[in-house]
Amino acid sequence: MTEFTRYKLTIEYDGTGLVGWQRQENGLSVQQLLEEAAQKFCRTYDPEQNRFYAAGRTDAGVHALGMVAHVDLPRDDEPFKVMSGLNYHLHNGPVAVLKAERAAEDFHARFSALKRYYRYHIICRDAPLTLQKHKAWQVRDKLDTDAMREAAAHLIGKHDFTTFRSVQCQSESPVKTLDSLEVIEAGEHVYVDCSARSFLHHQVRSMVGCLYYVGKGKWTPDDMKAALEAADRTALGFNAPPDGLYFVKVDYPD
Amino acid sequence: MTEFTRYKLTIEYDGTGLVGWQRQENGLSVQQLLEEAAQKFCRTYDPEQNRFYAAGRTDAGVHALGMVAHVDLPRDDEPFKVMSGLNYHLHNGPVAVLKAERAAEDFHARFSALKRYYRYHIICRDAPLTLQKHKAWQVRDKLDTDAMREAAAHLIGKHDFTTFRSVQCQSESPVKTLDSLEVIEAGEHVYVDCSARSFLHHQVRSMVGCLYYVGKGKWTPDDMKAALEAADRTALGFNAPPDGLYFVKVDYPD
Repeated sequence: MTEFTRYKLTIEYDGTGLVGWQRQENGLSVQQLLEEAAQKFCRTYDPEQNRFYAAGRTDAGVHALGMVAHVDLPRDDEPFKVMSGLNYHLHNGPVAVLKAERAAEDFHARFSALKRYYRYHIICRDAPLTLQKHKAWQVRDKLDTDAMREAAAHLIGKHDFTTFRSVQCQSESPVKTLDSLEVIEAGEHVYVDCSARSFLHHQVRSMVGCLYYVGKGKWTPDDMKAALEAADRTALGFNAPPDGLYFVKVDYPD
Repeated sequence: MTEFTRYKLTIEYDGTGLVGWQRQENGLSVQQLLEEAAQKFCRTYDPEQNRFYAAGRTDAGVHALGMVAHVDLPRDDEPFKVMSGLNYHLHNGPVAVLKAERAAEDFHARFSALKRYYRYHIICRDAPLTLQKHKAWQVRDKLDTDAMREAAAHLIGKHDFTTFRSVQCQSESPVKTLDSLEVIEAGEHVYVDCSARSFLHHQVRSMVGCLYYVGKGKWTPDDMKAALEAADRTALGFNAPPDGLYFVKVDYPD
């Protein structure tokens, strides 16, 4: 009988040009790149039998600084060797393994997660982006971050986030608890940092899209409150593009 | 007689895949992209007659956060229109104009410059880069930044920098005054910031290559002193790659 070792992997990726975390027919995914690298690293590994599972299934164009995934490999190697071996077969592409660790048999990257952190990066300037092309969202407006903070305060806590949910969302309930939603200004850069146990599909990009409306003065902070309370997708401002969104990290029990 | 207006332009570019600032037969340059955009923006502009001049002629793969250039255009437009028009014709490519200003007739981006600032970005980690691929130099070593600072101190001031000069360097003298050379550590990131009135060809990348030798313990800070005093190119450690180098900004007289 084959012995498997469960590995917890911390993964960075540039989501530009990828279809997102999950395998799809229409393009390259993070999951497919990792599973193909694992097959080359470990010839008896079968992705049909042992998938890579991630803490969050990011969309096309969304990036990760510290996504966490787990996989069962049919061998017991030093974690450093697993990291190096996977990176070797990832060929300096859009995905890299930052860290590998042996994990308990019952560790699950998705179901064991206690808290997820996202960052959204907006750059306010007239010129198009060059060095940060596809890595941030460029807007021509000067944003009022005080108003954005006032609007953000309405979203923190336990709410029905139906307004900020995509039609494809598979979550059982639209009720989620948003632990933090911070707006940080640094020169022409505006960062929106948020954390929660879990998020609805498109929730972060929807919240950022509405915060942008508030920042440019199209909405008041009270409009954000009204949009939330409407619990109605048609009350949504719009989704910010994927380019500026980063999956930052995950908390697990010690 | 055609009236010309001289514009001072602040320019950002992603040098990945470009042959550098200056026009060359073997690939696309920043200068060529700007001159072609200016021809589309202004049909009577002739690049053969009025070149774009830059404060620094960066090499292939080197980036700029705030390169300054000047050009004489055969029309007098509002600076904002010049910026927007050039950016429109730069098509969201690797070069963008951050700012345009009307400049005095005797302003020269290269010859009026009082001080130039460069930054070199090193990332110390085992995993290959994804989001910052071609935007930093990844090294697997943990660098001793205290030793790097001690070595850097030997280079500050007026010296014969022959050791750190490329064979292609066209500067009349190898004697330059290095005003500052700082080593900044932030987690896995190491930044080397420097400024001087002017630099020799490859000087920054050569200094960073030697600082890297000191950081990894291959050289002592005294070896840096000896390399400088040798005033001999064969005493050079090596040139750091262009990926991590950024032309940051230029000072001009008020």
